[in-house]
Amino acid sequence: MNRRPEPQPRTPRPRETEPRTPDKDLVWGKNPVTELLRSGSGADTLLLADSLDPKAAGYFTALGREAGAVVKRVPAGKLQKLCGTDDHQGVALRTTGIRYAELEDLLALAEERGEPPFLVLCDGIEDPHNLGAILRSALLCGAHGVIIPRRGGVGVTGTVMKASAGAAARIPVARVPNLAQAIRTLKERNIFVYCADLGGAPPEKTDLRGAVALVLGSEGRGPAALTRKLCDASVTLEMAAPDCGVDSYNVSVAAGILLYHIMQRRKGG
Amino acid sequence: MNRRPEPQPRTPRPRETEPRTPDKDLVWGKNPVTELLRSGSGADTLLLADSLDPKAAGYFTALGREAGAVVKRVPAGKLQKLCGTDDHQGVALRTTGIRYAELEDLLALAEERGEPPFLVLCDGIEDPHNLGAILRSALLCGAHGVIIPRRGGVGVTGTVMKASAGAAARIPVARVPNLAQAIRTLKERNIFVYCADLGGAPPEKTDLRGAVALVLGSEGRGPAALTRKLCDASVTLEMAAPDCGVDSYNVSVAAGILLYHIMQRRKGG
Repeated sequence: MNRRPEPQPRTPRPRETEPRTPDKDLVWGKNPVTELLRSGSGADTLLLADSLDPKAAGYFTALGREAGAVVKRVPAGKLQKLCGTDDHQGVALRTTGIRYAELEDLLALAEERGEPPFLVLCDGIEDPHNLGAILRSALLCGAHGVIIPRRGGVGVTGTVMKASAGAAARIPVARVPNLAQAIRTLKERNIFVYCADLGGAPPEKTDLRGAVALVLGSEGRGPAALTRKLCDASVTLEMAAPDCGVDSYNVSVAAGILLYHIMQRRKGG
Repeated sequence: MNRRPEPQPRTPRPRETEPRTPDKDLVWGKNPVTELLRSGSGADTLLLADSLDPKAAGYFTALGREAGAVVKRVPAGKLQKLCGTDDHQGVALRTTGIRYAELEDLLALAEERGEPPFLVLCDGIEDPHNLGAILRSALLCGAHGVIIPRRGGVGVTGTVMKASAGAAARIPVARVPNLAQAIRTLKERNIFVYCADLGGAPPEKTDLRGAVALVLGSEGRGPAALTRKLCDASVTLEMAAPDCGVDSYNVSVAAGILLYHIMQRRKGG
């Protein structure tokens, strides 16, 4: 044993590619995918290899869209990696444990409970742990549903389901083609739409009772400029240490603080 | 294309072992590890292969303990997997980006700021994303530090650092050999120790001003029985939907709601 160490600690070289972990929410092969798409149960993203012949591609694209899936063309090599096999026949479907709801279903649930609507919109949450925690908080705080965009941001995958502790199956989630349009629809229904953002009033000084929707931005960039513009007002969490070098809370934590606050206000607290 | 699909969707077989991703926070080899342990900078866990000769094992165990690392004996095969090489010489060190503080440092920071102490204790948080988010909220809410146990729960690894958005390097973290003893020490200093738990009063009905510490339990099991018993009182978050099938918030979300609440109370809100 040498007690006079060399100056350079040896560290592992970075891997050149990601490990080839097969995607657990993926089902592949023409027949299995056709069946799942027709069954109407949770279709998240339909992946079609660029090597797929045009007739088959057209057929699957139509079937996928009808089932509410996002349809993506990918290189055959990528599909091979995702499936962990060459046996995919050019077609794979990322499934979700849940059946997405419609925006109207969320509003109907509020009416059924005799409550003013209380909704959460996620503008591009990318981390499944964050979306899972947001769904969990939304359920526990009594929200009537969560709205996510069809593109830009994670869908309700198996990881999200697990991270939500099962909440994803218990609160309606609507996946809409256009989040801006969804915000306009909510505003037409006299729902006040708040954006969790910088530069707004703190929740204590905001009237969060009544029909409200809360928009949460993505982890890195916050809400998109158009989203921000469409919202009625911003609500901003305070910080005891505003110049501490970290300028925002984790998005699922921020969501939890705000949703808890809204729940308290709705209860008259 | 067969339009009459077979009944069974084809799904990937589960992998028998975890993918062999080398641990990014790991440094190996006798010399590099000796140097890091002697430098006093963030030593988290020292892994010694069971094939290491007793004299070397004794030497590294003493050196590791002195540096504050947890020392573990592991099968040589496991070390080979973690390092992604056979070149480890039976010794590997999981490093941390931070230098742990002492419990007294946290109390000294409160005194320096002229504030009653405000501390967070993590009783076995296992998910690095949760610990990272807790450190981030603790920093933003003005806590003077976070206390984690040396065994049982994740240390401040690179993943935690990243999940904390850098907060882990900006708030003192003390890693104590015995969390129960730390709670006793805080109580002797007249710090009121709350446990985030079921069956307590809601935060709105709790006096959270003054010198406080908040204990958070692990993801699956909550706080340990002894921890719970030592705390002065429990504080419990409310739920709008208590019988919704999910019985608790994500631990980092619960921490965020409670820490935000404590910050507001300390500001006189």
